[in-house]
Amino acid sequence: MGVNMSSALKFFFEPKSIAVIGASKTPRKAGNEILVNMLANGYAGKIFPINPSEEEIMGLKCYRSVKEIPGDVDLAVFIVPAEKTIEPLRECAEKKIPAAVIVSGGYAEVDQEGARLQEEILSLAKASGMRIIGPNTSGLTSTPASFTTTFFPLGKIRRGPISYIAQTGNFATHTMKWILTGENFGVARVAGLGNKIDVEDAEVLDYLGQDPETKAILMYVEGFRQARCFFEVARKVSKEKPVIVLKGGRTKAGAERAFTHTASLAGNDMIFDAAFRQAGVARVKRYVDLINAARGIAFQPLPRGRRVSALAPSGAMGVVVADACESLGLRMAAHSERTQKRLRDISASWVAVSNPVDMSAITPILGRIEGYKKVVEILLQDEGVDAVVPILLASADIAVEQYNFLAELSSNNPQKPIYVSFTGDKQRYEQARTFLEDRSVPVFVPMEDAFETLEVLCRCQEALNRDR
Amino acid sequence: MGVNMSSALKFFFEPKSIAVIGASKTPRKAGNEILVNMLANGYAGKIFPINPSEEEIMGLKCYRSVKEIPGDVDLAVFIVPAEKTIEPLRECAEKKIPAAVIVSGGYAEVDQEGARLQEEILSLAKASGMRIIGPNTSGLTSTPASFTTTFFPLGKIRRGPISYIAQTGNFATHTMKWILTGENFGVARVAGLGNKIDVEDAEVLDYLGQDPETKAILMYVEGFRQARCFFEVARKVSKEKPVIVLKGGRTKAGAERAFTHTASLAGNDMIFDAAFRQAGVARVKRYVDLINAARGIAFQPLPRGRRVSALAPSGAMGVVVADACESLGLRMAAHSERTQKRLRDISASWVAVSNPVDMSAITPILGRIEGYKKVVEILLQDEGVDAVVPILLASADIAVEQYNFLAELSSNNPQKPIYVSFTGDKQRYEQARTFLEDRSVPVFVPMEDAFETLEVLCRCQEALNRDR
Repeated sequence: MGVNMSSALKFFFEPKSIAVIGASKTPRKAGNEILVNMLANGYAGKIFPINPSEEEIMGLKCYRSVKEIPGDVDLAVFIVPAEKTIEPLRECAEKKIPAAVIVSGGYAEVDQEGARLQEEILSLAKASGMRIIGPNTSGLTSTPASFTTTFFPLGKIRRGPISYIAQTGNFATHTMKWILTGENFGVARVAGLGNKIDVEDAEVLDYLGQDPETKAILMYVEGFRQARCFFEVARKVSKEKPVIVLKGGRTKAGAERAFTHTASLAGNDMIFDAAFRQAGVARVKRYVDLINAARGIAFQPLPRGRRVSALAPSGAMGVVVADACESLGLRMAAHSERTQKRLRDISASWVAVSNPVDMSAITPILGRIEGYKKVVEILLQDEGVDAVVPILLASADIAVEQYNFLAELSSNNPQKPIYVSFTGDKQRYEQARTFLEDRSVPVFVPMEDAFETLEVLCRCQEALNRDR
Repeated sequence: MGVNMSSALKFFFEPKSIAVIGASKTPRKAGNEILVNMLANGYAGKIFPINPSEEEIMGLKCYRSVKEIPGDVDLAVFIVPAEKTIEPLRECAEKKIPAAVIVSGGYAEVDQEGARLQEEILSLAKASGMRIIGPNTSGLTSTPASFTTTFFPLGKIRRGPISYIAQTGNFATHTMKWILTGENFGVARVAGLGNKIDVEDAEVLDYLGQDPETKAILMYVEGFRQARCFFEVARKVSKEKPVIVLKGGRTKAGAERAFTHTASLAGNDMIFDAAFRQAGVARVKRYVDLINAARGIAFQPLPRGRRVSALAPSGAMGVVVADACESLGLRMAAHSERTQKRLRDISASWVAVSNPVDMSAITPILGRIEGYKKVVEILLQDEGVDAVVPILLASADIAVEQYNFLAELSSNNPQKPIYVSFTGDKQRYEQARTFLEDRSVPVFVPMEDAFETLEVLCRCQEALNRDR
């Protein structure tokens, strides 16, 4: 594992020129959508569509073969039927193109002939030193290079600090669409690895571990061809940045499906659990946990520890919050004497000041905005508090701009995460969410998601702290 | 426990005339908001505002005291300071008003004097036979009577089959706002019980158990004064309709908060767990689980068993779905020979037909809408399938109206629940959700929520089946 292995991936994530083998003029065909996506993302390198029957596609000069392209090509993207791959791949090898993404399916996932073709591709690549991602994948996205090979209609992909490795391209594309339309954070690199005949998770993880554009790495995997190698790399990378994994096949039914899907042998899930833990990888159980973790990381620092303070709009919500927090393995922070006094000073006299802070004892005195502001401020200053979770009541009488105090408090306290949640009026909190996330304060609804996410990110922080 | 006890509650849920003690002309004051809410809900009975300094409020003739009201009054709503309650309450007793909701706080939850006042109210009520809900609650909502006592600005409350008992009125109001703005189902009766000096959970549960307007009962509780009585009633009611509870105080931190909040002694949570189970009450862990369960019940039949079939837009999603399903205690249904054959007939030849059905092997042949339609239809006809969960990929090229096939299949198969989920484009699936839920097909995003909810409702069905 080392610099050499990873540096080869630069051609995948930062290509200066791309040949698209199977480029098409026909709208909605994959060979067309890939070009649409590349142009929509403003890719600044050279694009060479390869199609023997066309002169130009979308204003780009078309070539009959890569051999005709003047100058170097960093990356070849294949979107031709499996049985038509070998000849152009041989030409790529002859032209010394260092990297290829084989988007097309029809290989080992289909039949024996596909498996044979896949083997032939691999030996061709090995002989020439060409690296392969795929086949059977939507491939790559790399926003720092304004570049994507996906054929799933995505449009402009928002740039941000989160990278994502998915065993299956399909998963990566649907999830990308989800992120682009339902989230406010952006991504750096996305890799759908498909059948993984050459480049595997470990290598991409290693590359992303060293990638300055990547703040955290999410993964969806069903199995590893070389598990030992993966866990070795993961152990190293998880000391540098969060690595969070959803592993498919953790139940018997899931494992059966994983086998039919990617021929992954799930093995004993408890062994995976232990291996992930030892490697400092934070494992999550739900698909949505990956997205939530990304939201937390994209906008806020990791929590330094498990001591959480919360603000609840009612006593009952305070009880439910304490349950959520503690049942997930977090702790309600024990506030300092000073904090307790400061909270008492602004509370109705009859209320026992505790954690979660029951805001119904404070907002009637200070008002809803000022009350929350004051309390969040006090809690951020308590050394014994690692994260603050204000749960607000969204309603029509509060304009979203009034929530700006949360953004201000967050930017004045860059060491301590603030995760916001809401109850009440949905239209209002959806607006507030956009407003706050545009200002780097993440919003989690339902509120349990705030605590689930903090717990996952506590494990990431604990992994970063190992051997320090 | 019986007809007598419950019939007293009719005055709370179906009052023909109401006196509002502490009615106010001043906008935003609780005594004003209550009247606004009552009028917004189109309450058809008589409203008598009581305020010695006003002639009329919102066009309603105002009275100095209940004694001046000509004719009977079914229900008195108190929204005056605690120390000003006794005198008007005595007058209500003299007028033989059978029921009172004491909305105001300032009683046992505040101090000794409040506790004393509360005792005095109770003995006054007992002497006259008047029943009391509260104090310290937002009180009641009863959409079949177009009626509410809440002072939290809610506007028109959507009528539907779900009833809700909350220990705290505050919780009930925020949750009501959440339901009104974020959900598409409606409610029947909502009871916030507050300090519970007289009417308690058991009695309301008994009433709702016999209430033809109520299809299912949700509860938030922190503790029971008379636990034995509650579990006796619950055992009976859970054989008639679903009873679903979120109990605050299941962790040490939560229990401490519950004690300061409502002086509830949480006791050993494992004992509660066993007691709920024995009583046929489905316990949930998250606040949002209550809402999700209500959504499932409002729109679809309960699942007859735990055998679930799912449709996934990709192989990877199928793996994740199988994991979610099985880890929650549901089972992926084993499809009949006939179903397997019918699915094979419409699938790409190279795909192993399984459960979840990998739709990426079918939609390229049949198209996305027709493919899903065909498969859902086949699965609904399999005797070994108790529920069908289609997970669709939302995207701009599908108009929401195209999802109508799900509503049609659902109404043609009224015995088997269909729970829909989406991945992909958020704006699109939010639109689809409204469209589908308007046609009684519930949508759960993230998809794990569909399975969480099915599992909760399986427990409800199992409770209904006891001793049958």
